[in-house]
Amino acid sequence: MDPAKPAAIRSFVSVGPDSHFPIQNLPYGVFQPRSAGAPQIGVAIGDQVVSLAVLEDRGLVRVSDRPVFDKPTLNAFMALGPAAWHQVRATISKLLSADEPSLRDNAALREHAFFAQKDVHMRLPVDIGDYTDFYSSREHATNVGTMFRGADKALLPNWLYLPVAYHGRSSSIVISGTDVRRPCGQMSASDTGPPSFGPSKALDFELEMACIVGSGNDLGRAIPAGKALDHVFGMVIFNDWSARDIQRWEYVPLGPFLGKNFGSSISPWVVPMAALEPFRVAGPVQDPPPLAYLQTPGDSAYDIQLDVSLQGPRMDAPHRICRSNFKYLYWNIAQQVAHHTVNGCNLRTGDLLASGTISGPTADSYGCLLELAWKGTRPLEFPNGETRTYLQDSDRVSMTAWCQGNGYRVGFGEVTGRVLPAIIE
Amino acid sequence: MDPAKPAAIRSFVSVGPDSHFPIQNLPYGVFQPRSAGAPQIGVAIGDQVVSLAVLEDRGLVRVSDRPVFDKPTLNAFMALGPAAWHQVRATISKLLSADEPSLRDNAALREHAFFAQKDVHMRLPVDIGDYTDFYSSREHATNVGTMFRGADKALLPNWLYLPVAYHGRSSSIVISGTDVRRPCGQMSASDTGPPSFGPSKALDFELEMACIVGSGNDLGRAIPAGKALDHVFGMVIFNDWSARDIQRWEYVPLGPFLGKNFGSSISPWVVPMAALEPFRVAGPVQDPPPLAYLQTPGDSAYDIQLDVSLQGPRMDAPHRICRSNFKYLYWNIAQQVAHHTVNGCNLRTGDLLASGTISGPTADSYGCLLELAWKGTRPLEFPNGETRTYLQDSDRVSMTAWCQGNGYRVGFGEVTGRVLPAIIE
Repeated sequence: MDPAKPAAIRSFVSVGPDSHFPIQNLPYGVFQPRSAGAPQIGVAIGDQVVSLAVLEDRGLVRVSDRPVFDKPTLNAFMALGPAAWHQVRATISKLLSADEPSLRDNAALREHAFFAQKDVHMRLPVDIGDYTDFYSSREHATNVGTMFRGADKALLPNWLYLPVAYHGRSSSIVISGTDVRRPCGQMSASDTGPPSFGPSKALDFELEMACIVGSGNDLGRAIPAGKALDHVFGMVIFNDWSARDIQRWEYVPLGPFLGKNFGSSISPWVVPMAALEPFRVAGPVQDPPPLAYLQTPGDSAYDIQLDVSLQGPRMDAPHRICRSNFKYLYWNIAQQVAHHTVNGCNLRTGDLLASGTISGPTADSYGCLLELAWKGTRPLEFPNGETRTYLQDSDRVSMTAWCQGNGYRVGFGEVTGRVLPAIIE
Repeated sequence: MDPAKPAAIRSFVSVGPDSHFPIQNLPYGVFQPRSAGAPQIGVAIGDQVVSLAVLEDRGLVRVSDRPVFDKPTLNAFMALGPAAWHQVRATISKLLSADEPSLRDNAALREHAFFAQKDVHMRLPVDIGDYTDFYSSREHATNVGTMFRGADKALLPNWLYLPVAYHGRSSSIVISGTDVRRPCGQMSASDTGPPSFGPSKALDFELEMACIVGSGNDLGRAIPAGKALDHVFGMVIFNDWSARDIQRWEYVPLGPFLGKNFGSSISPWVVPMAALEPFRVAGPVQDPPPLAYLQTPGDSAYDIQLDVSLQGPRMDAPHRICRSNFKYLYWNIAQQVAHHTVNGCNLRTGDLLASGTISGPTADSYGCLLELAWKGTRPLEFPNGETRTYLQDSDRVSMTAWCQGNGYRVGFGEVTGRVLPAIIE
């Protein structure tokens, strides 16, 4: 499938050209009807959700001896592996196509299986085991390094040789729409202490995307780069909320901790890697060439457009403050997976690998306020006269992502969250 | 209960004075009879295991409407909270006491409920959500800082103000007895690259202990230091295997990753905090005084003796290479919990908080080979003439821990593991 060609396949469900959810996408999510009913797995199409639990119950989708779609997470389905993912995707694509009568012409079944997206409550789609955060944007690492160490020492010696990463916190990953509490913590203006304690004054977002691991590897056995994508089920948008002042005081020598682990937000629909396949593009030239275990010939990046908007409580509307693209990342997904497991570390179904902040080459493509307002020195200006260097209470941050085809989009919907004031106890 | 007094309570089960598992201990574990049967929860006493699943089934132990002990992990039981933990502990203590006939005089029930420890296979006792590794030994942080930054810059400015920590990898935590594969990875002798790739040449152990979180907190709500211990179910011994060469090249600026996440080992028996209560002692003097949220008046440390032994494939017996004590830690458990959650980060049932390497003041009390052999400059010598600076293939590392009472021990058993050679692919 070539994204420059008009979409050949059409659904009997009406889908506008700007919708994120045409039949080319078919992302998976966990939803609960607002009226009643248990959490279950569905697929988005246009402004609808199709319940896979219903289709499985009726025998229209069947991938295992036991039901896997009447579940509160995608884990049981993902654990079946890539052959099962492809089989289910092909089945759903056929069931929703304009030519296929089994759903199209069965009004009673459609009544039972279809829900308007506005009438459902989306839940965290995955039971996340371990969450890893990479640091794969050269522009982001360079900008942050320049601010804190100077331009000549911006990139540390290891950065061009390996996809730097650290382990993050799974427990505080929340679904889009969840408000996020401003954290309290220690901070030190001088970096040498003594610290003060209080609400963070440098609350930030980070524009990231994240892969969901569908099938893992045994402890002690690496995943070669050439097989890495067989282990990845799909992707979501990821907002890694960050408290820069807390982070800065705590992070030496063992890395970020309380500056990051108070909350991260993900978008509800997991876009399968198969839906992103037409949007593969070449990634940045890698020089020095990666070590053998990190080599990934061919188009290893994905052309995914990214937008961030901010709306303060006294603003009429959200205002775009960043436009970036997933293809800017220096280290690609296959390299991240190969590196993560080269020492034998085991990935498991449901693990989440986030990209790190995705900044582009221009000042309006930086993926966090630290960079956009350049460490507080270039405040962002908004139409109502307000400015921002970091987030204020009640600010709402929304991120969206989509691949642009000819007359259609494969999109991720959005991840949104609002800042709640700190609790002073 | 005062550890200097002889143990007043006795069990009808015979327990020697050096056993780790007298009636004063009653640690929980998950076992599977080697003959047959499902994983279930038991309590160690002497050289026996008592099946709580059997006692629950017979109505002798009952803590919830639903069974919680016929499970493959402790999570369901732990999630009931501290009142339930105390009730069950009191019940088991009574059932096993010399004065109580219900088990003592029922040979048929004992036949069904008791297993010899040598006849059972121990499993990972907990479904671990997030694993956090602290860095709470001042001696360890000072030694490592001295080696890598010089004595004048050994402790970084934040160290005396907060319990430094980072998130580790849950997926690769294994039960005692599991062999651990030597990892491959990037390393650079010069710290500036270009790196080489291959098996780690600086494989190390780290002597740690870890708390298991029994009941968590809501996202956004801190746990005050004074309530912290209500959230901790118990403790285990923890070996945080580390590849120093991989760690050193990768760890700036975001902390350890592949140098640590290839494997960590825990002991199988979770010793309840109630069993450790008699062994509370004063911790190190903290100067500067901690910020208000980190203040913990009273005896906040635990006197737990720690031993590490090493046996190479050509050695006749294990040789002790370290004797340390949990009481040396600068930051105590309540401070770790209070700090971890002060930003609103949520702990969950089953989370694991490791202490960091526990080094004491003398050269024979250092908790890892990096310190014991002082970065390779002072090789350890063994009776058969061999030396070690780091671990060799087939070396076995075993750690044990116990509190010494008057005529009895409250112990942790051991955590042991052997090094397997790297896989070269």
